Amino acid sequence: TKVDDNNGGDGVGAKSQNALSGFKTSNVLSVNAREKRIVLHGKVADEDAVVILEKTPFTEDTMDQVFKGSTLKLDMKNYIYSTYQLQASPHYNEIKTTLVCPATEKHISKYKHQESFFVEETKKDYETITLPFIEDQTTFSLEWVYNILQKKAEVERIVYEDPDPDTGFILLPDFKWNQKQVDDLYLIAIVHRMNIRSLRDLTAEHLPLLVNILQKGQMTILERYSLPSSKLRVYLHYQPSYYHLHVHFTKLGYDAPGCGVERAHLLSDVIQNLQSDPQYYKNRTMYFPLREEDKLLSKFKEAGRL
Amino acid sequence: TKVDDNNGGDGVGAKSQNALSGFKTSNVLSVNAREKRIVLHGKVADEDAVVILEKTPFTEDTMDQVFKGSTLKLDMKNYIYSTYQLQASPHYNEIKTTLVCPATEKHISKYKHQESFFVEETKKDYETITLPFIEDQTTFSLEWVYNILQKKAEVERIVYEDPDPDTGFILLPDFKWNQKQVDDLYLIAIVHRMNIRSLRDLTAEHLPLLVNILQKGQMTILERYSLPSSKLRVYLHYQPSYYHLHVHFTKLGYDAPGCGVERAHLLSDVIQNLQSDPQYYKNRTMYFPLREEDKLLSKFKEAGRL
Repeated sequence: TKVDDNNGGDGVGAKSQNALSGFKTSNVLSVNAREKRIVLHGKVADEDAVVILEKTPFTEDTMDQVFKGSTLKLDMKNYIYSTYQLQASPHYNEIKTTLVCPATEKHISKYKHQESFFVEETKKDYETITLPFIEDQTTFSLEWVYNILQKKAEVERIVYEDPDPDTGFILLPDFKWNQKQVDDLYLIAIVHRMNIRSLRDLTAEHLPLLVNILQKGQMTILERYSLPSSKLRVYLHYQPSYYHLHVHFTKLGYDAPGCGVERAHLLSDVIQNLQSDPQYYKNRTMYFPLREEDKLLSKFKEAGRL
Repeated sequence: TKVDDNNGGDGVGAKSQNALSGFKTSNVLSVNAREKRIVLHGKVADEDAVVILEKTPFTEDTMDQVFKGSTLKLDMKNYIYSTYQLQASPHYNEIKTTLVCPATEKHISKYKHQESFFVEETKKDYETITLPFIEDQTTFSLEWVYNILQKKAEVERIVYEDPDPDTGFILLPDFKWNQKQVDDLYLIAIVHRMNIRSLRDLTAEHLPLLVNILQKGQMTILERYSLPSSKLRVYLHYQPSYYHLHVHFTKLGYDAPGCGVERAHLLSDVIQNLQSDPQYYKNRTMYFPLREEDKLLSKFKEAGRL
């Protein structure tokens, strides 16, 4: 590794010179194939280090140079479609590199990827594995949810409230949304009813509640953020991250975390399924991912279901 | 642009040689900074062409080579954090390139960044709007699909085939996957049966086909890529991008484009729904996003359904 350090001054050059040339990878903490990023753990001169490499986005004005001086290798051709491997000049194809050194355990664990496993949960699995697990939880505190519903916290963040004890809910921004632009709009509707843990508890009895959330949520977002319902993805998670019924509203086109088919259930589909079969979510086999350190995953493993 | 073409035979080499060296960009159709992708519209020898460039994911086993022979430039240093620009050997830092040439208006508009709208399609909407639209299409050519099924193209890319005319399919890598790392594994199963347009056509009659695709697809991916079914997201799109039934296999944890709840339907859910209601997808109201220039969206607008 050669070092071409243009950033002179206070010994930074000399230090960086050795920084990555002496890097020895001990393990890969995570790989993000979609975003073209890899995070490595290793040593630099006997000190723990984390290196984050991420390929850079294309810039429109250098595209001509990318084509110039590049090498093309044909992979396949079918009809009007062909694919190639293009090797471009390194100068127009840089990799953004971040070094954390010395890195603590905390840095290492922050960047460590946890594998997920797809789990199949039959009606019986729910009754014998998941439900006892939920009922056993003191760790998954719902304190913060009750604070919202009882107006002990986040009062000023409430966007809309329907106070009806049966069909009412509070709509407020999700923590992940900074509310500065609607491009990544993310709101949560938390129901007032206290006895609905998740999708699994829903029956036709809850249709008025669900229809109310969908309609009033959409109406409020149209009025407040000028976003019509045709721009909204409205869904529930299963498994949810907390077991008090809540509904997610995110902007269509915003790739919100957790909106994948493996975990999200469109509220419109839920309503329709309950209309045609009042016990749909009671009887159904559900599929969802669990991360390797999730305690529920251990329960499925102990039961021989994975 | 030099061409290093290892893929010999029937003039493919000669054609590809000129393909990109003569490319003149007329405009940028889209840039995805998160995924490091750019799509250009331009001309190759007077013919309209679309070029898709996407940087490739990192592969763990070439990381040593990436560091070797690379050039580092320090950007900034603060406490234990430093950032650099790394210029790696082109050989270990390829760009996946797809050329569509000659490209039609449809291809150009497919890759152009566009707003999406959530559409509600009742059974009646399907019969009166969507089905006539599909049947009317000559532009959405299925030529390339038939080439695969008839072994006229991509033969060497086939990962598995079950030749049964009723329940058989061909499994092969999606265009988007370069097959170098399983982190972004993406395979497509294309069915041999010619008369199934989409999810909407499926009834209990197709259960043996669907179960066969799920089981043999999972088995093949386990054998070939050592990826168990608990690591796979297996789903169909509605609307699909072409109307010949196909199933997507992507790695769980890889945020594949099109795996969102608004468009993807888990094959396991599809099977289960058809088992409990043979006409589930015939009668159901479906929800899906359509991009603003999609002709199907115009049809929904004309019918007053948006």
